[in-house]
Amino acid sequence: MGPSALKLWVGRQSGGSDDILLELGSSIELDIELYREDLAGSRAHAKMLGKIGILTERELADIQRGLAQIEREIEEGKFEIKHELEDIHTHIETRLTQIIGPSAGKLHTARSRNDQIAVDTHLYVRKSALLIGRQILDFCSALLDSAKKEIDTILPGYTHLQVAQPIRLSHHLLAHFWGFLRDASRFKTAYNTANRMPLGSGAMAGVNYKTDREFVQKELGFESLYENAMDAVSTRDHIQDFLYACASLGVRASRYAEEVVLWNSVEFGFIKITDGLTTGSSIMPQKKNPDTAELVRGRAGRSVANLMNLLMNLKGLPFAYNRDLQEDRLPLLDSARSSMVVARALTALAGGIEFRRDRLTRSLSEGFALATDLADALVIEKGVPFREAHHIAGRLVGLCAERGFTLENAPESLRAEASDLLADESFYKKAIDMTSSTDRKASRGGTARERQEEQIGIAQGELIRVRESLS
Amino acid sequence: MGPSALKLWVGRQSGGSDDILLELGSSIELDIELYREDLAGSRAHAKMLGKIGILTERELADIQRGLAQIEREIEEGKFEIKHELEDIHTHIETRLTQIIGPSAGKLHTARSRNDQIAVDTHLYVRKSALLIGRQILDFCSALLDSAKKEIDTILPGYTHLQVAQPIRLSHHLLAHFWGFLRDASRFKTAYNTANRMPLGSGAMAGVNYKTDREFVQKELGFESLYENAMDAVSTRDHIQDFLYACASLGVRASRYAEEVVLWNSVEFGFIKITDGLTTGSSIMPQKKNPDTAELVRGRAGRSVANLMNLLMNLKGLPFAYNRDLQEDRLPLLDSARSSMVVARALTALAGGIEFRRDRLTRSLSEGFALATDLADALVIEKGVPFREAHHIAGRLVGLCAERGFTLENAPESLRAEASDLLADESFYKKAIDMTSSTDRKASRGGTARERQEEQIGIAQGELIRVRESLS
Amino acid sequence: MGPSALKLWVGRQSGGSDDILLELGSSIELDIELYREDLAGSRAHAKMLGKIGILTERELADIQRGLAQIEREIEEGKFEIKHELEDIHTHIETRLTQIIGPSAGKLHTARSRNDQIAVDTHLYVRKSALLIGRQILDFCSALLDSAKKEIDTILPGYTHLQVAQPIRLSHHLLAHFWGFLRDASRFKTAYNTANRMPLGSGAMAGVNYKTDREFVQKELGFESLYENAMDAVSTRDHIQDFLYACASLGVRASRYAEEVVLWNSVEFGFIKITDGLTTGSSIMPQKKNPDTAELVRGRAGRSVANLMNLLMNLKGLPFAYNRDLQEDRLPLLDSARSSMVVARALTALAGGIEFRRDRLTRSLSEGFALATDLADALVIEKGVPFREAHHIAGRLVGLCAERGFTLENAPESLRAEASDLLADESFYKKAIDMTSSTDRKASRGGTARERQEEQIGIAQGELIRVRESLS
Amino acid sequence: MGPSALKLWVGRQSGGSDDILLELGSSIELDIELYREDLAGSRAHAKMLGKIGILTERELADIQRGLAQIEREIEEGKFEIKHELEDIHTHIETRLTQIIGPSAGKLHTARSRNDQIAVDTHLYVRKSALLIGRQILDFCSALLDSAKKEIDTILPGYTHLQVAQPIRLSHHLLAHFWGFLRDASRFKTAYNTANRMPLGSGAMAGVNYKTDREFVQKELGFESLYENAMDAVSTRDHIQDFLYACASLGVRASRYAEEVVLWNSVEFGFIKITDGLTTGSSIMPQKKNPDTAELVRGRAGRSVANLMNLLMNLKGLPFAYNRDLQEDRLPLLDSARSSMVVARALTALAGGIEFRRDRLTRSLSEGFALATDLADALVIEKGVPFREAHHIAGRLVGLCAERGFTLENAPESLRAEASDLLADESFYKKAIDMTSSTDRKASRGGTARERQEEQIGIAQGELIRVRESLS
Repeated sequence: MGPSALKLWVGRQSGGSDDILLELGSSIELDIELYREDLAGSRAHAKMLGKIGILTERELADIQRGLAQIEREIEEGKFEIKHELEDIHTHIETRLTQIIGPSAGKLHTARSRNDQIAVDTHLYVRKSALLIGRQILDFCSALLDSAKKEIDTILPGYTHLQVAQPIRLSHHLLAHFWGFLRDASRFKTAYNTANRMPLGSGAMAGVNYKTDREFVQKELGFESLYENAMDAVSTRDHIQDFLYACASLGVRASRYAEEVVLWNSVEFGFIKITDGLTTGSSIMPQKKNPDTAELVRGRAGRSVANLMNLLMNLKGLPFAYNRDLQEDRLPLLDSARSSMVVARALTALAGGIEFRRDRLTRSLSEGFALATDLADALVIEKGVPFREAHHIAGRLVGLCAERGFTLENAPESLRAEASDLLADESFYKKAIDMTSSTDRKASRGGTARERQEEQIGIAQGELIRVRESLS
Repeated sequence: MGPSALKLWVGRQSGGSDDILLELGSSIELDIELYREDLAGSRAHAKMLGKIGILTERELADIQRGLAQIEREIEEGKFEIKHELEDIHTHIETRLTQIIGPSAGKLHTARSRNDQIAVDTHLYVRKSALLIGRQILDFCSALLDSAKKEIDTILPGYTHLQVAQPIRLSHHLLAHFWGFLRDASRFKTAYNTANRMPLGSGAMAGVNYKTDREFVQKELGFESLYENAMDAVSTRDHIQDFLYACASLGVRASRYAEEVVLWNSVEFGFIKITDGLTTGSSIMPQKKNPDTAELVRGRAGRSVANLMNLLMNLKGLPFAYNRDLQEDRLPLLDSARSSMVVARALTALAGGIEFRRDRLTRSLSEGFALATDLADALVIEKGVPFREAHHIAGRLVGLCAERGFTLENAPESLRAEASDLLADESFYKKAIDMTSSTDRKASRGGTARERQEEQIGIAQGELIRVRESLS
Repeated sequence: MGPSALKLWVGRQSGGSDDILLELGSSIELDIELYREDLAGSRAHAKMLGKIGILTERELADIQRGLAQIEREIEEGKFEIKHELEDIHTHIETRLTQIIGPSAGKLHTARSRNDQIAVDTHLYVRKSALLIGRQILDFCSALLDSAKKEIDTILPGYTHLQVAQPIRLSHHLLAHFWGFLRDASRFKTAYNTANRMPLGSGAMAGVNYKTDREFVQKELGFESLYENAMDAVSTRDHIQDFLYACASLGVRASRYAEEVVLWNSVEFGFIKITDGLTTGSSIMPQKKNPDTAELVRGRAGRSVANLMNLLMNLKGLPFAYNRDLQEDRLPLLDSARSSMVVARALTALAGGIEFRRDRLTRSLSEGFALATDLADALVIEKGVPFREAHHIAGRLVGLCAERGFTLENAPESLRAEASDLLADESFYKKAIDMTSSTDRKASRGGTARERQEEQIGIAQGELIRVRESLS
Repeated sequence: MGPSALKLWVGRQSGGSDDILLELGSSIELDIELYREDLAGSRAHAKMLGKIGILTERELADIQRGLAQIEREIEEGKFEIKHELEDIHTHIETRLTQIIGPSAGKLHTARSRNDQIAVDTHLYVRKSALLIGRQILDFCSALLDSAKKEIDTILPGYTHLQVAQPIRLSHHLLAHFWGFLRDASRFKTAYNTANRMPLGSGAMAGVNYKTDREFVQKELGFESLYENAMDAVSTRDHIQDFLYACASLGVRASRYAEEVVLWNSVEFGFIKITDGLTTGSSIMPQKKNPDTAELVRGRAGRSVANLMNLLMNLKGLPFAYNRDLQEDRLPLLDSARSSMVVARALTALAGGIEFRRDRLTRSLSEGFALATDLADALVIEKGVPFREAHHIAGRLVGLCAERGFTLENAPESLRAEASDLLADESFYKKAIDMTSSTDRKASRGGTARERQEEQIGIAQGELIRVRESLS
C-alpha cells in the first residue's frame, strides 16, 4: 500500500499531493509528541462506541490491544515515522490497521480529524499547564524558604535602579513570590479553559449518531463538554490561554533573571551563583558568567512570540476549521517545553544563589540609603521642622559625597559641619540604623520585621491554596 | 508659583528639567482620563488619614470639599491642563493647594505617586473590565436572540471555506456566542486581578505609619489588598490581564467581522446589512461597503499590539518602580476605548443583519452540500455497501457539475446515469432534504433541531451566570 | 576525554554545568545547520593564520585536511552529535583535535566563539537571502507569465470586497507582482547588511595580533568588514533585517493566499486549483480544499513572531555579548526554512491555478460592475447632466436587483422604466461593454489594454534588474 | 448643509451612518496632522488638471487660492474640526466649497480618496524619514565627538555583564555609533520606498482620463510612480518600512538607555547625568533618577508594537482597498512622533553625560580586568608555558579576591605566593598597565589607540556619506 493510499483523505486528485503541500503541511514531527493524548482519546472513544453498540466486544478488545501495542512501540522507539503520513492520527490509524485489520477503520466512526486533534491539544494543555504550574510553585517555595532565611538581611530597595530605602531581603524575594504565584494561577486558568471535551463533534455539525459524549468526557476526566460542535473544532482558546500564561511567565522570569545578572556583576556583587549555573574562564577565576540567568531572560521574546504567532494566525479566520489552524502546534509545543525548562532553571537559580551581605551593605552606604531616616529622626527626636530637617540631611549627604564618606563613617566634624545636631553620637547612630529603618515601615505589606513575618505566613497559606488547585 | 516649583519632585537640579524630558515624560494628556479614579483614591486615603488621626476633622473636610470642587471643574471643562505639571496627581495636588491651602500637602502622607497611579489603574481596569464584559454580553444576547429566530434557517457549514454540510444558522451563531462568552469571562479574570488594593505601599517598602489599609480597601470596594508593598507598586499584572482580554476580543471580533465582510459580498450574498453600518455609492446602489465590519477587523492588530507593547516594556525590568512603567498608560487607555467601541459595533452588526435565505440555499445547492447525505441514504435505505454508495453519490455530483445542475434540480435521466437507484423520486427527494440532513446530526452539540433547542437553553443559562459575575 | 573536559570554556567550577544549564543552553540541534558556514569561516581563518605566519604550512595543510574530512562526515551522516558539546564550534574543534591532534587548537588563535558564530550567521543570512530572493522572483515570473496570458480576461476589481469595476486580470496579477518584487529587494537589503565580515574581533576588543582581516574578508567574499570589534560581536542587524524581510514576505503571501482561498470557494468559483495542491473528499468530488493556500496564510503569524522574538530579545541588552543572543538561532533558521517553502508554494500555486471566465463574468454581472460606465456614457453620448445620469443608472440597478436581472440581461421594458434613454439598444450595449470599460482606464498604471502592455514591459525590465541584483 | 450631506460618499442609506460607524471610522483627529501633505497633493493635482485642460485657468487659480487660505486657517488654529466630516480630505473639500463654490468639486476629478490618502502618507513618510534619519545622525555626531574626547579613557569591556577586558571608551561609544548609523540608513530605505507617486490611480483601476502622472510626480518631487493603480492604493509598504526603521531605532535606543541606567547606578557609578535629564529628591541629593534614559527604554515596546499592529492588520487582506487599512494612521503618526522625541533625547543624553574615571578604574580593578594580560606577559617576557602562565595568573586573582586586594595593589608578598616570577616589580607593573593592554588589541577594529584613530577617521567619512544621502 503506497503512501498516497494511506492518506485519510482522498478525492479525485489524479495522483496524491505535490511535494510542496506535503512539505508545508506535514505535522508529524510535532504531532508525535501528542501520541499519549491521541491514544487516550482513541481509547475513550472506542469504549464509548462499544457502549452504544457500534463496536462489538471483540472489535473493542482488538482496538484496545492494538492501541496498547502502538503505545509500546512508540515508547520503545520502534514506531516508524513516515513523513508522507502527515500527522499522528494517520500514523496510528495506519499502524492499527496493520495490527488488527480493517476493523481499525470503525474507530473513526462518529469523530473526525478535526475533533481528534482538538481532544489531543486539550489533553496536552491540561497536562502541561498543571506541570508548569507546579514547577512555578516549586520556585515560589524556594523563594519563600529563602525569604525566611534572609529575613534579617538588609539590602537596598531600588527605584529607577537608584538606591532608595533599606529593605529586608525577604521583602524583595516575596515581591517576586507573589508575581510568580499569580502566574501559577494563570496556568490554572489555562487548565480550566482546556478542561472541556471536544470529541464527537465531527467536522463541525455533530455526528449522525446519538453518541454518549458525557461518557467520553468522564472517561477522559474533563469537567464539561463543548455545547457546540462548530465551536469545539474551531476554538483555540485553550492554546491561547496557555500561551498567554507562558508569555507572562517568560516576561516575569526575565525580570528575575535581569536582577540575577545585575547582582552577579562585579559592580553590584550582591550574589555568588553556584558554579553549575555559570560558565567561567580559567584565567579569570573570579569571572562567573551568569549564563543560566541570561538564557532565561533570552527566552522571554520566544514566549511572547509564540502567543503572537497564534493570535495573528487566528486573525480574520472565518468558521469552521481552516488548515491554517494546524500552525497552532509549533507555538504550543515550543512554549510548553520552553516554559518547563525556564521554570526549572528559576528553581535552580533560587537554590544556587548565596547573598554577600558585605556588598549589600556597601551599596546601602554608598547609596546613602539612610538619609531619609536621618531627617525623620531630626523631626521626631530633635523637633526640627520637616523642611529644615531634610535640608540638614541633604547637606550632610552632599558633604559625604564630596569628601568620600558614607553616613556610617562620616566623622563627627563633618556631621557638625552639616548641623550641630548631628554631632550627638548616640542620636546619630540610632538614626541611621538600617534594621530600625526597615522596622519603621510598619504598614501592612511593609518591610518591618513583624510585617515580614505576617507576610510569610500569608504567603505560606496562599502557596498551599494554589498548590491544591493545581493538583 | 512657577511650573518647576510645582513639581512633586525636586532636587539639586540647577533649573528644572530639560524640555526633552518633559516631552518624553509628561503623561497628563492620557492621565486626565483617570481623574475619577485618582479622586476616589484620594478621598478614601484622606478618610483613612482622618480615621487614624493624621488629618484633623477640619483638614479632612477641607480636602473633601477641595476634591469635590476639582471634580466639578474637570467635568465642566474648567480645569486647566498644564503640560509642565506632567501628571494627574500633580495637577490635582496643585489645584487642591490653591483651593484649600497648605493642608493639601498632608494628603500625601503615607502614600507615594507610585502607589497612587497603581490605585488609579486598578480602579480603571476594574471599571473598564466590567463595562466591556457587559458590552460583550449584550452582543452574546443579540446572537442568542438571532439564533432563536433563525433556528430553521439552513446555511452551509464550511471547512477550508468550502461548503461542507448543511447546518442550522442557530448552530453557526451559537459557535460565535460561546467564544465571545469566554471572552467576557476573560474580562472577569482581569477584573479579579485588578480587585486588589495597592495604596499605602509608599515608594516600595511600606510607610512609616500604622495605616489602616483594610479600611481603604473596603472604602474602595477591593476584595483584597497587596501583601507586599514592592509587588504593589511594580506589578502591571492587572493591566496585562486586561490587555490580554482586549487582544482576545479583538482577534475574535475580527473573525466574526471577516464573515460579515464575506457574507456581504456579491458572491456570497448571504446578508443585507442595515444602511447605517455601511457606506455606499450613489451610482451603484446595490453596493454596500461593510465598513463597520472592516473597521472592527482592522482593530485586531491594535489590540494585540497594545499587549505586546506592555509585555516588551516589562521584559528585563528589575524591581521596583522604573519610569518605563509609565508607558503602560497608552496601551491601557487605547485598548479600553477601542474594545468598548468594538463591542458596541458587534452588537450593532448583530442587530443590523438580515439573512437572505435564497442565497444560503443557492450556496448549499451549488456546493452539493447534500452529497454525503445521499450516500448515507443509499446505505441505510437501499442497502448499498458504503464504498459503492459513496461512489454513486460522487458520480452524480460529477455529472451535475459537468452539466450545470445541482442535486436539487438534477433531472431523473441524469440521476439514472449515475445509478438506477437514484431514479426513485420519493427516495431521492427525501435523501437530499436539507432540514432532515441537519436533524441527523443528533449528537450532543450537533445541529439537529432538538440539539439546537437544548443548546439554546444551556446558552441562556450560561449567559445569566456570566452576567451575574460581571455585575 | 569526558564531556566536561571538552567544553571550550572551563573555570573553577567544581564539576561542570548543571543539567539545566545544558538543557537551556545547548544549541547544537540548531547550529548543526550552520556547519558549512562554520567550516568556511574556519578555512578562511586558517589560511589567514598561515599567511601571517601563525600556522606553519604543515599545520595549515593538516587543518584543511581535517576540516574537509569533517565536512564529508557531516554530509554522509557519520558525524556524531553530542548534546553536551553544546554548539557547532565545539563539535568541530573536538573532532578536529581527534583527527589532526593538538595543532587543531591553534585554529582558535585570534578569534573567539563570539565572532565565529557571527561569521556563521552572516554567511547563512547571505546565502538564504539570495536563495529566497530568487525564489520570490520565480513566483514573480510566474505571475508575469500569467498576466501576459490573461490580459484579455476581465474580472471584478474589488474595494471593501465589493465588486467595484471591471479590470483586466493582468492588472490584478501585476498588483501582486510589484509587491513581491519589493519583497525580493528586501532580501537584497538583508543580504547587504550581512555582507560585512565580523571575524577577528575576539571577545569584543580585537585580538592581540596584527591579523589580516581584509584577507579573510576577500576570502569569504564579503564586501566590507566591521570597523568595530564590539559592534561585530554584538550586532544582530543582519538577522533582524532578514527576519523583517521574511515577515514582510509572510504577510504578503497571506494576502495572495487569502485570495486563492476566496476564489476557490463555491461562491466565488473564480479558479480551479490543480489537484496536487488541494485535498479532497471521495464523496464530494467537487470539493477541493485549498490547503496549500491555507497553510501559506497560516505561516504569516510565524514569520512575524520570529521577528518579534528577536526584537524583544534585544530590548534593553547592554554591550557586548550576552548569552541571550544565542536565542537568535531559532527564529533565524525557522524563518529561513519557512520562507523557502512558502516561496515555492506560491510559485506552485501561480502555476496551478486555472481561471474560470464564466464565473468571473457572473460576478461582474451580479455585482453590476458596469453601472458607473453606463452613467458615464449617458453623460458623454447623450449629454445627460452628471447627477441625472447617475440617478438613472442607480435606478436601473435598483430595478434589476429587485426583479432578478443583471445589466446585461435587463429587458428593454425594464431599462425604459429607469429612463427612455436606455431603450436605445446599440447605445446601451456599447455602454456596458466590459472590455471597453477597462480600456477607458487609460491613465498610466490603469487597466486599459495598452497600459497593461506598457506595464508588462516595465515589469519585465524590473524583474531582470532585481534578478541581477540577487545573483 | 447638514453633516451627512457633506460626506463624500452617499448611497441609498436611509439616513446617514450610525454613530457607531462614525465613532469607529472617523480619523480626523489623526489625519489633521497630514494637512500639509494633503494640500500639497491637491495643489499638484490641480496644476496637472489645469495642464491637461480639465480645469480652466480661472478654476485653477480659485482652487490654489482656496487651498492657500485653508492652509493659513489650519496653521492659525482657525480651521474647524468636525467629527462627522470623518477625514482630512472631506474637511478640506468641504471648506474649499465654502470658499470658492462648486468648482471645488472638479478638484476630485481623476483621483479618489484611496489614492489621496496614499499620496498623503507617502509624503509624510518621506518627510519624517529624512527628519528622523538626520536626528539620528546628530546623535551619531555627538557619539563621535565624545569618542574623540574619550579616546584615552579606559573602561571595562563586558561580556555577560562581567568585566572582561580593558577597552578605550571611544571603542564602546563607536560600537553604538555604527549601529545607529545603520538605523539612519534604514530610514533612508523607508524614504526610498515612499519615494514613489501613487496619485491618479482612482479607486484601483486607473482613471478615465489620460492624466499626466509624470507631471504630478515631478511636481511633488517623487523619484518614480506606481506602475499599477491597484498596487498604488493597496500597498502599505512605505509605512511598513518606516515602522520597521522606527522599531529598530526603538530597540537600539533601549540598549543605549539601559547602559545609561546601569552606569548611573550607585554601584556602577560610571557617569554623572546633567540635572535637566534626571529627576531627584530633596532629601537624597546624590540620587539622580535617570528618567530620560528610562523613558527612552520604555518606548521600545511601543515602536515594535506599532509595526506589529500594521503587519497583523495586513495579514490576509485581499485586494484592493479595505477599510481596515485606515488603521495604518495611528501607528504611523505615533511612531513618527515617538521616534523624533527618542532621537532628540538620545542626543541630549550623549551631550549630558560626564564620565567618572575613578569609578571606571575601580571596576577594572575589582573585575581583575588585567589578569589575561598578566598571563600573556608571563608567556612573552618570561617564557612561561601558556598553561602554566594562566595557572599563575589565576592563582594570583584567587588570592587577591580572597584577601581583598586588586591586581594593582597586591603586595609583593602576595604576588610571590602565586609565583616568584611576579615579585619582579617593573615586570609586574608593566604587565598590568591598562593602556598598554588596550594597545595590544592591534587588529583592525580593535581597541588599540592607532586603531581607534583609524576607526574615528572612517566613522567621520561614513557619517558624511550617510548625511548626504539623507539631505
